[in-house]
Amino acid sequence: MPEFKTLLVEQTGKVAHIRINRPEKINAMNRDFWAEMIEVFGWVDETDSIRCAVISGEGKHFSAGIDLTMLGEAATQMDKDIARKAEAIRRHVLHLQHSFNVIDQCRKPVLAAVHGYCIGGAIDLITACDMRYSTEDAHFSIKEIDMGMAADVGTLQRLPRVIGDGMVREMAYTGRPVYGVEAARIGLVNRTFADHQALIAGVMDVAQSIAAKSPVAIRGTKEMIRFGRDHSVEDGLNYIATWNAAMLQSEDMKIAMAAHMSKQTPEFAD
Amino acid sequence: MPEFKTLLVEQTGKVAHIRINRPEKINAMNRDFWAEMIEVFGWVDETDSIRCAVISGEGKHFSAGIDLTMLGEAATQMDKDIARKAEAIRRHVLHLQHSFNVIDQCRKPVLAAVHGYCIGGAIDLITACDMRYSTEDAHFSIKEIDMGMAADVGTLQRLPRVIGDGMVREMAYTGRPVYGVEAARIGLVNRTFADHQALIAGVMDVAQSIAAKSPVAIRGTKEMIRFGRDHSVEDGLNYIATWNAAMLQSEDMKIAMAAHMSKQTPEFAD
Amino acid sequence: MPEFKTLLVEQTGKVAHIRINRPEKINAMNRDFWAEMIEVFGWVDETDSIRCAVISGEGKHFSAGIDLTMLGEAATQMDKDIARKAEAIRRHVLHLQHSFNVIDQCRKPVLAAVHGYCIGGAIDLITACDMRYSTEDAHFSIKEIDMGMAADVGTLQRLPRVIGDGMVREMAYTGRPVYGVEAARIGLVNRTFADHQALIAGVMDVAQSIAAKSPVAIRGTKEMIRFGRDHSVEDGLNYIATWNAAMLQSEDMKIAMAAHMSKQTPEFAD
Amino acid sequence: MPEFKTLLVEQTGKVAHIRINRPEKINAMNRDFWAEMIEVFGWVDETDSIRCAVISGEGKHFSAGIDLTMLGEAATQMDKDIARKAEAIRRHVLHLQHSFNVIDQCRKPVLAAVHGYCIGGAIDLITACDMRYSTEDAHFSIKEIDMGMAADVGTLQRLPRVIGDGMVREMAYTGRPVYGVEAARIGLVNRTFADHQALIAGVMDVAQSIAAKSPVAIRGTKEMIRFGRDHSVEDGLNYIATWNAAMLQSEDMKIAMAAHMSKQTPEFAD
Amino acid sequence: MPEFKTLLVEQTGKVAHIRINRPEKINAMNRDFWAEMIEVFGWVDETDSIRCAVISGEGKHFSAGIDLTMLGEAATQMDKDIARKAEAIRRHVLHLQHSFNVIDQCRKPVLAAVHGYCIGGAIDLITACDMRYSTEDAHFSIKEIDMGMAADVGTLQRLPRVIGDGMVREMAYTGRPVYGVEAARIGLVNRTFADHQALIAGVMDVAQSIAAKSPVAIRGTKEMIRFGRDHSVEDGLNYIATWNAAMLQSEDMKIAMAAHMSKQTPEFAD
Amino acid sequence: MPEFKTLLVEQTGKVAHIRINRPEKINAMNRDFWAEMIEVFGWVDETDSIRCAVISGEGKHFSAGIDLTMLGEAATQMDKDIARKAEAIRRHVLHLQHSFNVIDQCRKPVLAAVHGYCIGGAIDLITACDMRYSTEDAHFSIKEIDMGMAADVGTLQRLPRVIGDGMVREMAYTGRPVYGVEAARIGLVNRTFADHQALIAGVMDVAQSIAAKSPVAIRGTKEMIRFGRDHSVEDGLNYIATWNAAMLQSEDMKIAMAAHMSKQTPEFAD
Repeated sequence: MPEFKTLLVEQTGKVAHIRINRPEKINAMNRDFWAEMIEVFGWVDETDSIRCAVISGEGKHFSAGIDLTMLGEAATQMDKDIARKAEAIRRHVLHLQHSFNVIDQCRKPVLAAVHGYCIGGAIDLITACDMRYSTEDAHFSIKEIDMGMAADVGTLQRLPRVIGDGMVREMAYTGRPVYGVEAARIGLVNRTFADHQALIAGVMDVAQSIAAKSPVAIRGTKEMIRFGRDHSVEDGLNYIATWNAAMLQSEDMKIAMAAHMSKQTPEFAD
Repeated sequence: MPEFKTLLVEQTGKVAHIRINRPEKINAMNRDFWAEMIEVFGWVDETDSIRCAVISGEGKHFSAGIDLTMLGEAATQMDKDIARKAEAIRRHVLHLQHSFNVIDQCRKPVLAAVHGYCIGGAIDLITACDMRYSTEDAHFSIKEIDMGMAADVGTLQRLPRVIGDGMVREMAYTGRPVYGVEAARIGLVNRTFADHQALIAGVMDVAQSIAAKSPVAIRGTKEMIRFGRDHSVEDGLNYIATWNAAMLQSEDMKIAMAAHMSKQTPEFAD
Repeated sequence: MPEFKTLLVEQTGKVAHIRINRPEKINAMNRDFWAEMIEVFGWVDETDSIRCAVISGEGKHFSAGIDLTMLGEAATQMDKDIARKAEAIRRHVLHLQHSFNVIDQCRKPVLAAVHGYCIGGAIDLITACDMRYSTEDAHFSIKEIDMGMAADVGTLQRLPRVIGDGMVREMAYTGRPVYGVEAARIGLVNRTFADHQALIAGVMDVAQSIAAKSPVAIRGTKEMIRFGRDHSVEDGLNYIATWNAAMLQSEDMKIAMAAHMSKQTPEFAD
Repeated sequence: MPEFKTLLVEQTGKVAHIRINRPEKINAMNRDFWAEMIEVFGWVDETDSIRCAVISGEGKHFSAGIDLTMLGEAATQMDKDIARKAEAIRRHVLHLQHSFNVIDQCRKPVLAAVHGYCIGGAIDLITACDMRYSTEDAHFSIKEIDMGMAADVGTLQRLPRVIGDGMVREMAYTGRPVYGVEAARIGLVNRTFADHQALIAGVMDVAQSIAAKSPVAIRGTKEMIRFGRDHSVEDGLNYIATWNAAMLQSEDMKIAMAAHMSKQTPEFAD
Repeated sequence: MPEFKTLLVEQTGKVAHIRINRPEKINAMNRDFWAEMIEVFGWVDETDSIRCAVISGEGKHFSAGIDLTMLGEAATQMDKDIARKAEAIRRHVLHLQHSFNVIDQCRKPVLAAVHGYCIGGAIDLITACDMRYSTEDAHFSIKEIDMGMAADVGTLQRLPRVIGDGMVREMAYTGRPVYGVEAARIGLVNRTFADHQALIAGVMDVAQSIAAKSPVAIRGTKEMIRFGRDHSVEDGLNYIATWNAAMLQSEDMKIAMAAHMSKQTPEFAD
Repeated sequence: MPEFKTLLVEQTGKVAHIRINRPEKINAMNRDFWAEMIEVFGWVDETDSIRCAVISGEGKHFSAGIDLTMLGEAATQMDKDIARKAEAIRRHVLHLQHSFNVIDQCRKPVLAAVHGYCIGGAIDLITACDMRYSTEDAHFSIKEIDMGMAADVGTLQRLPRVIGDGMVREMAYTGRPVYGVEAARIGLVNRTFADHQALIAGVMDVAQSIAAKSPVAIRGTKEMIRFGRDHSVEDGLNYIATWNAAMLQSEDMKIAMAAHMSKQTPEFAD
């Protein structure tokens, strides 16, 4: 099990539970955090015995978003020529985006379990996850607008595919809070739970049920939904046909079929 | 009226009602079924007196999805070289997809009326329809995941455009049942009805109201929504302008206008 | 302040309130209206002191859509050769589309406040707006289908991105009315208000809160959501990184940060 | 070997040679021809012992394009309502396009060997082929412009990917003849031959060399080039990786490697 | 005939000849020029009696590109905030691009006849034209690189579709001159002529031959080639089928057919 | 200067010259080579004093492509389940592709100088470069077809954008050799040189001329051409306008302008 400065990681069965661990800073995302996201999801992706991941926040909140001290540092170190400074900023933003792209690209499903504050960069993070769940009183806000900037690490690209176009604009232009119950109604989260404990228990249950499925089938399903987000229905149909040309030759289908016939629970290789 | 082994077809006014008719097998989709889907929707598309179609299940359920005996057969007949076998599977999947693409491409709207089980391939089928309606206790499940495979005849491509990205992943990764009431809340069906009888009556009403509209206008509307699913807003605007360049020269507009002025019901040619 | 024949315009703080002003014709969209939409949103876009716009209807309704006399005129003036007439119609439709594209392309958010009838072309108009709000009894209908034509000034292209694919087809094929409460449930409007007065007050509040944000940040946010509608997540991420390369060098971020630190309300330059 | 009214077909080794066979009509494309193209390329695609096809013209010319009597027939049979007539024409054009799409979609390479006239619809045909070869005096012309119409069965879509954008416009706007030597210079044909006999011999040689390769490798190569024509480099790289996931498990690679080591000619299964 | 400060315009038959007319400044593109391009091509597009346009340079050269004094002016007038200045520059560039987009979007073919210098912005201009012709000693250079900037009014977007990817990069990175003969070899021009007089005579001949064709057919052809540049083959085929649904009902086809039968020259209405 | 096992690297002025250095193995690409490509182009990209790179082959040849021993190793190490083996192969291919994607994505232009053999994977490599130059007798061949596989590290995706669609298929289906002179004619290389020495001297000259330009301008130019390859003209125009919003605020433009006025050679910061 790898160790991190800003994350607590534990594996339960075939599920990795990743907790953002800077509770004294409302889990604000500092330089270490951005680097460790890449490490931890590399580890999740490469470790065969892990089939699903959950991400949540240690302490009273999920996360307050990017650590404001990082914004300050970045501004001072850069070049004097406006063009060269622009290029440095552009590359820096692409670099930060990468830290959440690894969630989106991870071959295993990643579930966000949100309680307390989930604002600014934390919204970018959870929109890169496969599914989102929260407590009823979780507090969501696209706070970047109040920092005088357009959100630039994923919210504006991924959130419109999750909730309606009208509501995403209201949240992004006004930065107003959306609480758990409304979040469930507009599709931002799949379901709410009464409190933090029930949330973690409920999300871990979903994660364990996913971890019991054929990993070949889960990876194919995630890849198809990701691909479909940006491609035509026709391209998607061709892709799954090509993909399944190899994957339907898997042992897992025989195991599933045999388990189905004998009414037993199938056991799939990692 | 064509006759089929796995389908019951009747025409009421200008609406064709197609019932999947293997109730003793929970309407499982066997080899004949896949072939007859192409035939029946070819007939719907070409028959001028039909302007709308409804698809439902005979007996206690809509459909249990693909007949598992088909999966077995396919596996045994194929080539020994892995590459040649992969090519055969790829072409077989493309072939099956075609059986539901004909619904999507049919120039007339197709409405699904779902009661009882609607699982696996049946979800692929209804996502290729224009609209979905169900009883309150209808049971929807993306069951392919429990067969050790990623769904490959349309669900993963079309469903994300119907319901939220978060919920489609939960359904596809876990295979958990979604019942009618939840289905309506997440947009999987447009409306629920108390029981099978009310469902069929209600959906036939919607279908008859569509059949009374100008067929020129209905075809254009379906084509535009299909096109828009995979193209930019700008491309879509250009397409409807080009399309309507001919279609606005139709008699139907004059008939509609005259009916509007005289407060009478317009009658449009097939 | 520019003057118009079919519009009433007033500026409150940094918000422009545009009212469609042909109440005796249920605000039907005549030739002047289509031209004046381009003018008024050109003015909104170019006027630095305006940061947000609201559009509503004077009198008892939002709008009954295109003035039917316009359709008649167009038909009589055209060429006799079917091909040349088709080209003239195509260009006319593109021309009308432009009158609502200016809303979509306007750099400032545009909010629709709907009461009473909002039918036909009025649906096209509000789907080009950023957000929609209505009274509980507002009456929405894609009425073009009853004119014997496919809607061609934006509804079929933009509405599927706002509400579910299943519901947009039901509305477009049947032309059935959807009232405020259902409109909120399916995401057609963000929120409903008890009556016209509460509606206008509520929407102006949202607009004022947007107008108080950094205009640099608001423009970037709108551009990103627009772009994301038609591009892949990856293209969108690259675009915001390139955009913010310059925009993060803005004074507005420093102002926002300083205000945040001192718990004061920031004041941004136009 | 299937028999045709408008085509002569013979198989030499693993190469099918298809000759358009209406020399007394300069191989003009009549109703039978359009239907038989679908049949013959279905046969080529399905017949394992055929790995490559050559298409040429019987008599003094390749083909004069669509039979003008077909255009006349089509015009007289159609509906009186302009909109319904438009829909009929649209579907007719899509139907004709399909007759050349089968060449493009055929899994085996198709080589055009052109001598004499190759005008109008014949240009559409050869642009759907994989490669083109001609005699030095072959005569190419996008003749549709002189029929008062824009070419609509493939030339305007496929030719710009073969020759430069500037030259395709000159050919399409003016209909001017391009002879073999110039055709080779601008990339319309890969190579010219001194006369018809040398042409057929040369093209059959290329075809035989292709037929000797691994059919698994050839099909993958054609699919990738087709796909790449309409997709990004990144999408193409992902597609070949997915495709080769199964195809690199082929026996053909072992056969090829063994032959390479022993300096012998490999023999691949069909 | 409209009058311009920077352009000489004359109509010969159905061809408009537009000459850039600042020979004392090597036809450098000043503020008036950019505005007048929009005007003159609006006039070409709207004037039915004009069916084709030719653009050339008055004096010894085609054009030296953007007037450097314009670059200077722009820099001084702008905002002090880097973000607001960036927005102003972005909009200015989009504005300049529009002056050449009107050539690309003009429904009538536009032919460039180039002699002498054709550098910087002049390359952007000619790549927006349908075809390019030049004298043998014409001098082409993507000179923007020597101004310390990436070309931003069209060259980098349109030229790769005209000449090879490898050569466009060499020209764009090095700014090296390419003369007429090489330009013809790489496809930058369609043909070269011995001198200016022969060039103008030759290009006017091509233009007149285009002007004699059916304008319905020419417009459809240009639209299809433009559309195909940015869309898939499949989308292009669907577009031409939809387009021709109306256009094949034209009188022009009957006129062309009758002329063909009687071996006479057809006369098409404007 | 970093050191490598399979590469020789030296810097001349602001140009890095990278030589593939396994001459005793005809520069075949072994495991180390694929890893070192990522390292060396990471170094080129990050090192400010390098503005352009040249890649060539040490010894008598450019490269014989992938080391066949690598193919063998890969096959033996993998999983027994066909599906899991397929996934491993897919990821391995994506991994190899990355080694050439770094050339394509490198912000500095990369020029290939080819002499002797350039076959198989070596074609994939040079198609990822910006420009290609060769000796007259260089020998190019898409040799993968003779290994029983479709090329999968870039040739089939990138080469059709460089040479004509017809010629790329002939090369890919037949694997036939194309020599320097023909390569220049079809656009595979920009120019040929008499021998190896002249080639290196000539390519270094081009590279030095690029290295003398504004690096801000060069990077923008490369990014635009890369982007344009996969996007519409309209998207490309919008992108350069957004990009130049920051880049036109560069010091480099002032330096270039001043040098232009004073007829001196400008000196740009790295």
